[in-house]
Amino acid sequence: MINAALNMPPSSFHDARNKERASAWFSDLQNQIIAAFEQLEGGLQGTYADRPAGRFEKKNWQRNTSNPADAGGGTMAIMRGRVFEKVGVNVSTVWGEFSPEFRKHIPGAEADPRFWASGLSLVAHMQSPLVPAVHMNTRMIVTTKGWFGGGADLTPMFFESAETADDKKHFHDMLRNCCDRFDDAWYPKYTQWCDEYFYLPHRGEPRGVGGIFYDYHDSGDWERDFDYTQSVGRAFLQAYVPIVEKRMNTPWTAEQRQHQLQRRGRYVEFNLLYDRGTLFGLKTGGNTEAILMSMPPECAWL
Amino acid sequence: MINAALNMPPSSFHDARNKERASAWFSDLQNQIIAAFEQLEGGLQGTYADRPAGRFEKKNWQRNTSNPADAGGGTMAIMRGRVFEKVGVNVSTVWGEFSPEFRKHIPGAEADPRFWASGLSLVAHMQSPLVPAVHMNTRMIVTTKGWFGGGADLTPMFFESAETADDKKHFHDMLRNCCDRFDDAWYPKYTQWCDEYFYLPHRGEPRGVGGIFYDYHDSGDWERDFDYTQSVGRAFLQAYVPIVEKRMNTPWTAEQRQHQLQRRGRYVEFNLLYDRGTLFGLKTGGNTEAILMSMPPECAWL
Repeated sequence: MINAALNMPPSSFHDARNKERASAWFSDLQNQIIAAFEQLEGGLQGTYADRPAGRFEKKNWQRNTSNPADAGGGTMAIMRGRVFEKVGVNVSTVWGEFSPEFRKHIPGAEADPRFWASGLSLVAHMQSPLVPAVHMNTRMIVTTKGWFGGGADLTPMFFESAETADDKKHFHDMLRNCCDRFDDAWYPKYTQWCDEYFYLPHRGEPRGVGGIFYDYHDSGDWERDFDYTQSVGRAFLQAYVPIVEKRMNTPWTAEQRQHQLQRRGRYVEFNLLYDRGTLFGLKTGGNTEAILMSMPPECAWL
Repeated sequence: MINAALNMPPSSFHDARNKERASAWFSDLQNQIIAAFEQLEGGLQGTYADRPAGRFEKKNWQRNTSNPADAGGGTMAIMRGRVFEKVGVNVSTVWGEFSPEFRKHIPGAEADPRFWASGLSLVAHMQSPLVPAVHMNTRMIVTTKGWFGGGADLTPMFFESAETADDKKHFHDMLRNCCDRFDDAWYPKYTQWCDEYFYLPHRGEPRGVGGIFYDYHDSGDWERDFDYTQSVGRAFLQAYVPIVEKRMNTPWTAEQRQHQLQRRGRYVEFNLLYDRGTLFGLKTGGNTEAILMSMPPECAWL
């Protein structure tokens, strides 16, 4: 058993059954998201309603690095649809050893490089420039320590519109409700972390209108923290699906589309210049195809 | 005088007249390139010949950082044409102080953070997927040390075609001839450096078909090294202009265009993940607009 092999006081994070439960939840959540997004695809009445509704395609992959201790894999699910221009929902469960240069950056990995990690990550780029893009991620990480991390954040193409103000309010309300059921200190802390994290210093611009971002989350009560992780997943659907439903049938102009392609350029800049997960994944021999599924299908720079 | 202020044995790099000569050359080269590229725009007979020929627009900018020691500026020249979908040719001459976190990475800057730098950089993204994209840069940098750097490299959209093999040969021949006039050890060294530098490890792919890349170039003879820098600039035009002329009138398909947009995605990945100049510029408060002029006008990820 991995927790025994880790040669440390067992915690709930090191309990193999809890790892299985977390891993199973991420797969379950992937299926819930797939069902909800395919239903949105089916309900389109606006632009592109003459096209067939998109369906997710799933692809399994196995981890393959130069270190034989590394193993695991995942399932990429991707849909190129008429509402969702490109959406990827990846789950992965991997374990192995951090390379020497990364050990000092990971809590609990300096003394013992072994880790276990499972999570779901999602990025949706929409056909309509009037429907915000969205990112969501939840994960459980185990080294000699253990924690949950994740969050969800909304990226409208037009920051200043009345519709964006409404969408931002709804999105944040759903996430705040989710957090407040556990601890009313969490939403203020995690929404501030989100604003600080999703920021492009070279542009002096936020990436979007925020949401929540958290990491190293270990309150001492694994069951409650796992419950929170699951709640964030469900809250994401409550936060995002109604926004898509409300905006997807509104016609848009070529100018709005062009603006969307340029905003997607900012998204690319953030992910390739700053996003810890992207940089970490690419530099540790992660699955490039899965990591860069977050890249937009089309984008532009002026 | 800056070289006196640097409080060190004067070298030809620290001679104010040499700085002026280098800076004037980069502006002169910018004008030569603009003239050559506008002439190519005027000569189009293939796709988009019904559109007006593009013209460069110039925009001056002043350096503006939080350190009052920093000054200088540059001229961005950009053309959005019918042959050149987007081409930026930037010159800049800037001086000031490296911030503490960068001093240890710059030769000669650890003891004294003051620097002077002048250079030209160019990236061209072409309308036709059958015309390679190109990058070229030459610069002179002065700290307590001094050196030239730069290079030119070609990025065809189709790596395996007979046309690419021909274009690669011509491009390398012109750069080899340029190097060999000075020292026949330089081309082998600098073309290898180019291959090593323009490589995407997360893809296991080269960015293009190479060229030359050099840095910290100081043979001890400033006049000769400056002559080499000027020769690289002229060789770039001899290397690239005939390729554009030869390829620009060939019709292309929508599939070839789509492939081009995806290859441009690789270009974005390289520049934002690995390119030292881009990352250094963005993280030292450089001119974001000038630095990211290298980004393609349109691109795509599968």
